[in-house]
Amino acid sequence: MPTLKFAVLSGDYIGPEVMTEALRVLEHVAKKENLTLSYQHADVGGAGIDNHGKALPDSTLATCQQADAILFGSVGGPKWEKLPPKEQPERAALLPLRKAFNLFANIRPGLLYKDLADASPLKSERIPNGIDIVCIRELTGGIYFGAKSTITLENGEQQATDTMVYKTSEIERIAEAAAQTARTRSKKICSVDKANVLETSVLWRKTVTAYFAKNHPDLALSHMYVDNAAMQLARDPNQFDVLFTENMFGDILSDEMAVICGSLGMMSSASLGTIQNSHGKPFGLFEPAGGTAPDIAGKGIANPCAQILSAALMFRYSFGLDAIAAKIEAAVRKTVTVDLVRTGDIAFGKPAVGTKAMADAIIKNL
Amino acid sequence: MPTLKFAVLSGDYIGPEVMTEALRVLEHVAKKENLTLSYQHADVGGAGIDNHGKALPDSTLATCQQADAILFGSVGGPKWEKLPPKEQPERAALLPLRKAFNLFANIRPGLLYKDLADASPLKSERIPNGIDIVCIRELTGGIYFGAKSTITLENGEQQATDTMVYKTSEIERIAEAAAQTARTRSKKICSVDKANVLETSVLWRKTVTAYFAKNHPDLALSHMYVDNAAMQLARDPNQFDVLFTENMFGDILSDEMAVICGSLGMMSSASLGTIQNSHGKPFGLFEPAGGTAPDIAGKGIANPCAQILSAALMFRYSFGLDAIAAKIEAAVRKTVTVDLVRTGDIAFGKPAVGTKAMADAIIKNL
Ligand SMILES: CC(C)[C@H](C(=O)O)[C@@H](O)C(=O)O
Ligand SMILES: CC(C)[C@H](C(=O)O)[C@@H](O)C(=O)O
Repeated sequence: MPTLKFAVLSGDYIGPEVMTEALRVLEHVAKKENLTLSYQHADVGGAGIDNHGKALPDSTLATCQQADAILFGSVGGPKWEKLPPKEQPERAALLPLRKAFNLFANIRPGLLYKDLADASPLKSERIPNGIDIVCIRELTGGIYFGAKSTITLENGEQQATDTMVYKTSEIERIAEAAAQTARTRSKKICSVDKANVLETSVLWRKTVTAYFAKNHPDLALSHMYVDNAAMQLARDPNQFDVLFTENMFGDILSDEMAVICGSLGMMSSASLGTIQNSHGKPFGLFEPAGGTAPDIAGKGIANPCAQILSAALMFRYSFGLDAIAAKIEAAVRKTVTVDLVRTGDIAFGKPAVGTKAMADAIIKNL
Repeated sequence: MPTLKFAVLSGDYIGPEVMTEALRVLEHVAKKENLTLSYQHADVGGAGIDNHGKALPDSTLATCQQADAILFGSVGGPKWEKLPPKEQPERAALLPLRKAFNLFANIRPGLLYKDLADASPLKSERIPNGIDIVCIRELTGGIYFGAKSTITLENGEQQATDTMVYKTSEIERIAEAAAQTARTRSKKICSVDKANVLETSVLWRKTVTAYFAKNHPDLALSHMYVDNAAMQLARDPNQFDVLFTENMFGDILSDEMAVICGSLGMMSSASLGTIQNSHGKPFGLFEPAGGTAPDIAGKGIANPCAQILSAALMFRYSFGLDAIAAKIEAAVRKTVTVDLVRTGDIAFGKPAVGTKAMADAIIKNL
C-alpha cells in the first residue's frame, strides 16, 4: 500500500475551497485504489503574509521539502494588491518555490472538451473538436532569473537592466521534457523563439535542432517566432500539438492559450524539477492555471476541476501512477460532458451546481 | 501647393502589388487636394538582397534620408528563408531602419469594422461593434537593442545573453506618444509591463505613473501585467482603448491584436521617430502589419487596404494632413462596409474583387 506524501498549499480566496474538494476526490481515489495519502497543509501567498509575514514562510518551505510533491491552490488578491509588485503573494510565493525545487519544466495542457467549445472566445467553427494542445514553458531560466539592476546615470536619469541568459544544458533539458510529452501524443512539436533578434534564441534554436536530430530524429520538429506564435494560437490553436519555449515567452503564450481554451476553471498545470522524489519520479508542483477569483470566493460556486485535474497530473508525474491519473481525468470529462454537471463558469446560463456538488458528481464517476 | 516627399520601399511578393494601388490612390488624392507628390522607389528586403546584396542597401538608406517619410510595403518570403534568422529580409531591413531614424513609437490601430466581425477568430457576440483599440509599442529600446553575447563556458557549454535596458527618458517619450493618442480617443490608457518580475518594468511603471500624474492627470491610466494582457486581448479586446508597452511585449501583443482584428489585409501601422521632417512633423515609416503573402503573390488578389490605410497614417503623422488622412480612411471604410466591394480575404465566400478593382472602388469614394 504505497504512501503518497505531498504538501498542500491552498493559498487564498477560492484556493482553499477548491482544494477541499480536490482532497475529497483524492481520498476517495486512495480508498478505492488502496493508496495511503499523507499530506500536510501549509500557508502560502496572502495567507503566508498574514500569518507568518512572508508569502513563502520558512515552515511552509520545510513542509514542502519533506514531501514528494506540492499540490498548490492559488494565491493573491485585492487584500494584498497595495504591496509593491515584487512583494505580491503570487510572485513572492511562486518564484522562490520554483527556485528552491529547480522546477524547470512547466507543462500546461491546453484542453477544451468539444462540448465546451462555447466557453472559448474563439468562433466554434475554428475549433470543431475543441482544443487539445500542450504548452511547455522553461521555468527557471531566462530573464526571470538573470542579473538585474537599476542605476542612476550621470544626467540624473535612472536606467534599469534585466538579463536574459540561457546555456546549452538548460535548453537541452527542457527540449527533452518537451520531447517526452510529444512522444505520448502526435509526435509533432514546435519550438518557439525569437531567433531573428535574440542571441539566447539563436542558441535556443541551434541547441534544440541539434538535440532533436541526435536524440529524437523521429519527432517532427518545427520552429516559430514568438510573435507569429501569438497570432497562430488565436487563429487556429490546433495547428500545434506540443509547443515549447523559454520562460518569458511561455508566460505570455501559455496564458493566451489558457484563455483561448475557455474556462480557466478547467486548466491544470504541472511544474517539474530536477529533484527525484522517493518514488524515483520528479518532485513537482501542481496548480490550476487560474487565479484566486476573489469575486466568487466564499460562495461555494468555484469550479474545482482545475484543482482536481492538477492533482491528476501529480499522480502521473510525481507518483508515476498514470492509470489513476487517467481515471481522474476521465471522471472529470464524463461529469462535465456526459452527466452535464457543471459549475456556473461552464454552464452557459443553464442550471449550475456548486463546488461541492461538482466534486460529488466526479466522485460518483470514479 | 505643398510637396509631399517620401520614399517608396515596396519590398517583396505582394508588396509591390499593393503599393502600386496605394500610389494610384495617393495620386488621385493629390490631384483633388492640390498636393504634389514627390516619391522615389528603392529596393528593400529580398529585393535589396537580390539586387544589391543587402536587405537595406546604402542607396535605399540614402533615398530615405532625403525624404520626409517612408511608405513601406512588406519584405521576406520563401526565397530567402534559408538565410540565418538574423539575415532574413524582414529583420535585416527593419531593425536598421528603426535605428537609423530613431523610430521609437510604433502605433498600430486595432480596427475591425463592425461589418467585418466575421473575419475575427473571436465569437461575434464578444465584439458586437467590431474592435477599435490602439496598441503602441516602444520600438528602439529594450532587449532588441541591448548588449548581446554568446560565450563558451569552462565545461564546454555555450551560454548566450541578451540585455533588456530602459532609461527614464526612453519611457517618458513613449508615454507621451501614448498620451497624445489617448487624447484623441476615450482618454483611457493601459500600460503593460511585468513589474512583478523585471527591473525594467519596475522602472517603466514608476516612470509612467509619475509622468502621467505630472503631465496628463486627466487621462485614466491603468497598469496590467503582460501575461494578463495576452489573456484579456483574446477575451475582450474592447476593454482596452489605448494600450502601450515596451518593445518585446509590444511585438507579441500587437501581433496577437492584429490577428484578433481579423484580416491582416486591413491592418496599418505607423512608426514615428525623433527626427523632425521638413513639415515640422516626425519622420515616420508606414507599413501594413501583414506580410508578403507569397501564396497569393502575382495573382492580383491581395487586399490593398492595409497599404492604403498606412499611407493615410503617413498623411496624418508625417505630413500633418489629418483631414486628408480621415478622408482616405472614410473612403476605405465606405468601400468595404457600404459598397461591399471586397477582396477575397474579407469577402466570406461572396464574390470578391482583385487588388486593382478594390483600389478603383476606393478612388471612387474619394
Ligand atoms: C506571478 C508570476 C511571477 C508568474 C510568472 O510570471 O511566472 C505567473 O504569472 C505565472 O505564470 O505563473
Ligand atoms: C522582423 C522583426 C525584427 C520585427 C520585430 O520583431 O520587431 C517584426 O516582427 C515586427 O514586429 O515588425
